[in-house]
Amino acid sequence: MKRRYLLSFSYLGNHFQSCSRDGNNLSSVVGALEDRLQRLKNTSLASNVVVSSRTDRGVHAIQNTAHVDLLTDRELSLTNVLNVLNKFYRKNNIGLRVSAIRQVADDFNARKFARFRTYLYRIAVPKYNFDCIDPYTPISEVTRCYFLRKPGFDIDAVQKGLSLLIGTHNFLSFTGKPSKQTLVRTPIRRIFSFTINQGAPLMCDLHEPFSNNFDYWDFIVEGRSFNYRQVRRMIGALVAVGQGKFSCNGLQRMLDLEVQSDEWIMSIIAPACGLYLMKVTYNEDDLAVNRKQKQCIQEYSNLMFLLKQRELCLKV
Amino acid sequence: MKRRYLLSFSYLGNHFQSCSRDGNNLSSVVGALEDRLQRLKNTSLASNVVVSSRTDRGVHAIQNTAHVDLLTDRELSLTNVLNVLNKFYRKNNIGLRVSAIRQVADDFNARKFARFRTYLYRIAVPKYNFDCIDPYTPISEVTRCYFLRKPGFDIDAVQKGLSLLIGTHNFLSFTGKPSKQTLVRTPIRRIFSFTINQGAPLMCDLHEPFSNNFDYWDFIVEGRSFNYRQVRRMIGALVAVGQGKFSCNGLQRMLDLEVQSDEWIMSIIAPACGLYLMKVTYNEDDLAVNRKQKQCIQEYSNLMFLLKQRELCLKV
Repeated sequence: MKRRYLLSFSYLGNHFQSCSRDGNNLSSVVGALEDRLQRLKNTSLASNVVVSSRTDRGVHAIQNTAHVDLLTDRELSLTNVLNVLNKFYRKNNIGLRVSAIRQVADDFNARKFARFRTYLYRIAVPKYNFDCIDPYTPISEVTRCYFLRKPGFDIDAVQKGLSLLIGTHNFLSFTGKPSKQTLVRTPIRRIFSFTINQGAPLMCDLHEPFSNNFDYWDFIVEGRSFNYRQVRRMIGALVAVGQGKFSCNGLQRMLDLEVQSDEWIMSIIAPACGLYLMKVTYNEDDLAVNRKQKQCIQEYSNLMFLLKQRELCLKV
Repeated sequence: MKRRYLLSFSYLGNHFQSCSRDGNNLSSVVGALEDRLQRLKNTSLASNVVVSSRTDRGVHAIQNTAHVDLLTDRELSLTNVLNVLNKFYRKNNIGLRVSAIRQVADDFNARKFARFRTYLYRIAVPKYNFDCIDPYTPISEVTRCYFLRKPGFDIDAVQKGLSLLIGTHNFLSFTGKPSKQTLVRTPIRRIFSFTINQGAPLMCDLHEPFSNNFDYWDFIVEGRSFNYRQVRRMIGALVAVGQGKFSCNGLQRMLDLEVQSDEWIMSIIAPACGLYLMKVTYNEDDLAVNRKQKQCIQEYSNLMFLLKQRELCLKV
């Protein structure tokens, strides 16, 4: 019997070449998931793994989601599946963990049904003017944080910039070069919330003294969906605002633009290493296995109600 | 002119196959250092890189040290060397950073002259009884911490165990199988200090909710030198004490043994991922470039003093 499952999983971006399948191996997140799923006993893959949020190479995920169809002759032990998958990833030092599997309705789509996507972006601003910051960077942060090269970060200006981005805007200037895809889809997106708060190093300065050379800041942004590289381009522009290299007026002009300007776009993109997909949120109703039945019952009762009304009308 | 330099550097253990050179490539820490050093302009390597503390595969270093001889026709710009090396490691996402280079005396030896070595070991104890902990493990901790499988950790017993290990002991039972090397060298070592304190996750539970599933503990141990795998075996035994699988009496018996018992030794060894070499400390005097000159002057003045005394004696 074919059943659809929703997977929740986390991964370290630097452990993979990409998120989407990339040849028949473990070098992509989807590849690593499919590779182990198709080796499960008495089970076969009836569809590819469809990931809800395709992260760029190097971007981490605290929680990403995907759906997949599995063909099984008997009820799957989901705990067993979790254990088999994770055991393999742990033993092979692969930075991927599957945290949950649940059955969903056959027409559930992990990507389309997502209601919120929450991202974290970590930056570190040097406290002093170093000739070169590399020798003073905490090793634990390598591939995990975006290190600015110079001190000075105007947090008020950044906060003003953030507030401009919240709400529904044409984010054409914050996406990649127009491809066939972006020309078809609308670049209009809605940002529910966008904040910046004091962050913390991964290891305290007691253990890693170089942590003390930097101030850490955490951006958190939430929306239903984002354009290709939109988060990294927004952060790139906001960091430029914080450093005084770009103004809030410039940011406003980017939002007002309805045609892409190549100069701006190519100049400010924050590196992948600082970005973490924190959460993909669904409506609980959408996750119900018998959602379709529910819907049918609802539609049936609506129909009955209409028929009864008509009957009443006829009787009158 | 040939000059000797002392390098301080940090690395992530999971980015390398080993610490010592392993073929002619970037897969070892020493290999990655030598590879870049021999490509410096107007400079050639006059010796191999001699690392002070050879860490096992998977063990991280916040600060490790090494010495190397470079042949240069003019004074080296050490800032420039630092920048060239680190730029390469950063651009290629290699988890290695050189934090300092300084010239030392020609007979300086990074390994033999080390006065203290300080290690950190991070463990995480589950708060609840999970069927399997893998799905509940924070992704940021993968390859960075040792996750115990079951809750319950008797910190008082561990503290009692620690105190037994401090001081000078025969650590034969805490080293690997006797090899030619260990048979030649004495397994007697002195532990200056050994502590355990509440630790912290790399990412707080606000960003990574699974962090909240665990209690973190940091072991810190300091000694002049350690036997092969001594730290990981001591931690392994102490964790077993904390879990009630091993007693402090057993620990004492291991210290008293002067012949290795295979059963004990092979059973308890903590994984490499939790271990961090925090610091290698030298006497400031040993680091002086003109240490040899100083020594000569000292010896000369001592000789003069003796001669004068003899003169005085003769006069009397």
